[in-house]
Amino acid sequence: MKKKDLLGLKETEKKEIETILNLGDKFLEILKRPIPKVPTLRGKTICNLFFEPSTRTRLSFELAAKRLSADVINFSANTSALLKGESTLDTLKNIFAMKVDCFVIRHSLSGAPYFLANHTSASVINAGDGTHEHPTQGLLDIFTMRKYLGNLKNKKVLIIGDILHSRVARSNIFGLLKFGAEVYLAGPKPLVPDEFEHTGAKTVNKIDEIIGEVDVVMGLRVQKERGGASFLPSFEDYRRYYGITAERQKLIKENAIIMHPGPVNWGVEMDYEVLKDKRCVIHEQVTNGVAIRMAILFYLLGSGEIKEEG
Amino acid sequence: MKKKDLLGLKETEKKEIETILNLGDKFLEILKRPIPKVPTLRGKTICNLFFEPSTRTRLSFELAAKRLSADVINFSANTSALLKGESTLDTLKNIFAMKVDCFVIRHSLSGAPYFLANHTSASVINAGDGTHEHPTQGLLDIFTMRKYLGNLKNKKVLIIGDILHSRVARSNIFGLLKFGAEVYLAGPKPLVPDEFEHTGAKTVNKIDEIIGEVDVVMGLRVQKERGGASFLPSFEDYRRYYGITAERQKLIKENAIIMHPGPVNWGVEMDYEVLKDKRCVIHEQVTNGVAIRMAILFYLLGSGEIKEEG
Amino acid sequence: MKKKDLLGLKETEKKEIETILNLGDKFLEILKRPIPKVPTLRGKTICNLFFEPSTRTRLSFELAAKRLSADVINFSANTSALLKGESTLDTLKNIFAMKVDCFVIRHSLSGAPYFLANHTSASVINAGDGTHEHPTQGLLDIFTMRKYLGNLKNKKVLIIGDILHSRVARSNIFGLLKFGAEVYLAGPKPLVPDEFEHTGAKTVNKIDEIIGEVDVVMGLRVQKERGGASFLPSFEDYRRYYGITAERQKLIKENAIIMHPGPVNWGVEMDYEVLKDKRCVIHEQVTNGVAIRMAILFYLLGSGEIKEEG
Repeated sequence: MKKKDLLGLKETEKKEIETILNLGDKFLEILKRPIPKVPTLRGKTICNLFFEPSTRTRLSFELAAKRLSADVINFSANTSALLKGESTLDTLKNIFAMKVDCFVIRHSLSGAPYFLANHTSASVINAGDGTHEHPTQGLLDIFTMRKYLGNLKNKKVLIIGDILHSRVARSNIFGLLKFGAEVYLAGPKPLVPDEFEHTGAKTVNKIDEIIGEVDVVMGLRVQKERGGASFLPSFEDYRRYYGITAERQKLIKENAIIMHPGPVNWGVEMDYEVLKDKRCVIHEQVTNGVAIRMAILFYLLGSGEIKEEG
Repeated sequence: MKKKDLLGLKETEKKEIETILNLGDKFLEILKRPIPKVPTLRGKTICNLFFEPSTRTRLSFELAAKRLSADVINFSANTSALLKGESTLDTLKNIFAMKVDCFVIRHSLSGAPYFLANHTSASVINAGDGTHEHPTQGLLDIFTMRKYLGNLKNKKVLIIGDILHSRVARSNIFGLLKFGAEVYLAGPKPLVPDEFEHTGAKTVNKIDEIIGEVDVVMGLRVQKERGGASFLPSFEDYRRYYGITAERQKLIKENAIIMHPGPVNWGVEMDYEVLKDKRCVIHEQVTNGVAIRMAILFYLLGSGEIKEEG
Repeated sequence: MKKKDLLGLKETEKKEIETILNLGDKFLEILKRPIPKVPTLRGKTICNLFFEPSTRTRLSFELAAKRLSADVINFSANTSALLKGESTLDTLKNIFAMKVDCFVIRHSLSGAPYFLANHTSASVINAGDGTHEHPTQGLLDIFTMRKYLGNLKNKKVLIIGDILHSRVARSNIFGLLKFGAEVYLAGPKPLVPDEFEHTGAKTVNKIDEIIGEVDVVMGLRVQKERGGASFLPSFEDYRRYYGITAERQKLIKENAIIMHPGPVNWGVEMDYEVLKDKRCVIHEQVTNGVAIRMAILFYLLGSGEIKEEG
């Protein structure tokens, strides 16, 4: 029984995640062809609903859809009937009545994609909801780790930053634990409450104690716009205690990888020099994102096998 | 002799309207296919020119065009050369010089699409001009009525609201009268002047006197942004006298239908409970809108028959 | 050895320009077909990056790309991660990591496309950078001149206006001189400094002395937004001394052409009557722009010959 939606990695089974990751491998190959396009989802319509500004996620979904030959329509909150006082649900029901096959939604309210999914028979993909989950980012991160590290069982992943407000961290935690990885969370104490240990992850106080032992070092964005910064004394202090600096870079294992969901505040959570480190896979995360989003769209909307050009 | 433009239903002949409605039936079937797309208008370019904000109409046209395999370009007034002080006509002439086949225009000025149509050999479709006409909405409404009621001769249609400022009402009145329907107009007196009787429609004072006898009850949006509200004492009073309330719902005939062009001000011109009434076809109007707009685009730009995938 | 980018006509060789112009002829023919579309660049992705508002150039590139069957994604600076404080280069590197084949960039900073081109292996096309160059406009202007005048050797081209701040003028000057044309520059003295003579063009003081002898009269837009107007006493005076007025129109040679890159400030740099002059090719410039941009995209991204529908 195929699922209708991808709302969060917490409720997605390991087997489903593996199916999506394996599809991701195939689509990454397709993206390397001279004509990186398959007619797999021709005639399907995907509607991007971004209620928060976004470059990379929206473009990544748009590219993924176009490379599957689907049609894409973009709805942005500010140019719409919302100006006339129409409720968001009314707007969405109306777009759904136009026979859209899939909604990709980003919203500042945690849970918004669940609400939408309950009101439509179209597929709904959560592209980030409040501080809750960002499952497609989690999947592309896990996909990237698997490419470098193979089986993730007992691999150590250190996630550094404002865990409390990070939907990226949550999706990674839920997904990684299903694969038997050990997840370590570090950051300013108020932003990494002990409650997170209930998930199965471990909180650590000083990143220098563990950074040399882990297989993945993942920095998170200091989300000034979500109020996280108010818990921080200053960006300088943040960098001193939690930044992936040029100095800490030397402590990281030879075959570990350094990740960040972007956009990076250079000089705060990561030094610019780190980008040139061969272990730093930030740009590969972006490339993999298109392949994984193709995999997700195909998993939810496709049927049978990936069609090739006739 | 095929027409170049669709500017208003007043000047569109009954026979033409019937041709479009019959095409609409065919496209509604095509939309039910697993791949709801035909290569009929491949290589044609349709330019959406929306000088007023719009969700459903713009998306509906964009979807209609894509399902006919046409290319769509979107021009929105605020991101354009208009910022440099370029006149609208200059802008349009320049877009036309790029060999666009069809303009879909929404403008706050009544008559703007006629002005444009006189200055271009491309097709022009009026997607709503000021308080004048909204012919594609009129056509999708008549299409929806025909699906439920069959032949519209002597069918009774009650349109309730700010008739004076409603381009939707005008297009419905002009179209419906050509099919021999009886059109009743109700609303606050200053917004339903007796002059409308010259069209052939009838004005009524109290909707309760007639709501039980009609085949169609159509609510209109209270257009706060067009100043209609200034004639109203309050939204509560509007609802009391002119709202399609849960109480009035009971007066409506068993096989009648309830319509609204959307977006609805729930609790003002219609109670939210009414949406669940099986006679309420608001979402089908939206679905039919895509089929009718495909029909209109094909009627103006296509040649011969609807092409199918080779 | 094919070039990766088109950044300016100064550094583009005459032979390359000729190749693009000859391709332009072919694409102009294709645009006249009933289905003006070829599958030449299917699967290629072109990203429009407009950091300044633009109608005609952005739409022209979008149409050119679609008629070559490429996919187009639009990135506009204000709806993007730039709101989150992401640097432009970071944003672009991320879009590039999604495997975009070509960036079309307009930016208010002279040199921005060169900076981008150094940081990506994708093709970069300059769609206007500050006051530096606008090479695709230059190419479409030269293409238009060649269509009317044939060989440009010793042809006289008069460019009138704010030469100092005009990227259009610069690209025309560099391109035209390579073809042996004689370029005359006229305008308010502070806006046409003698330094321009170093390019090989000639500055003239009074346009009436030469307007009757030239083969091309090109007006430039008075760019109020770039401060050019501050050098001018008034629009009336500008028109009196530098406008292509209905009176000066009579002085222009029978077989000369009148050009303007648009949008025109009617009544300032050109009288509206001039638009109806059969020698005025402003709208043909726009039409040719799509063909030339198809030629440029094909030149940079295509391989071998123009594919036709199978």
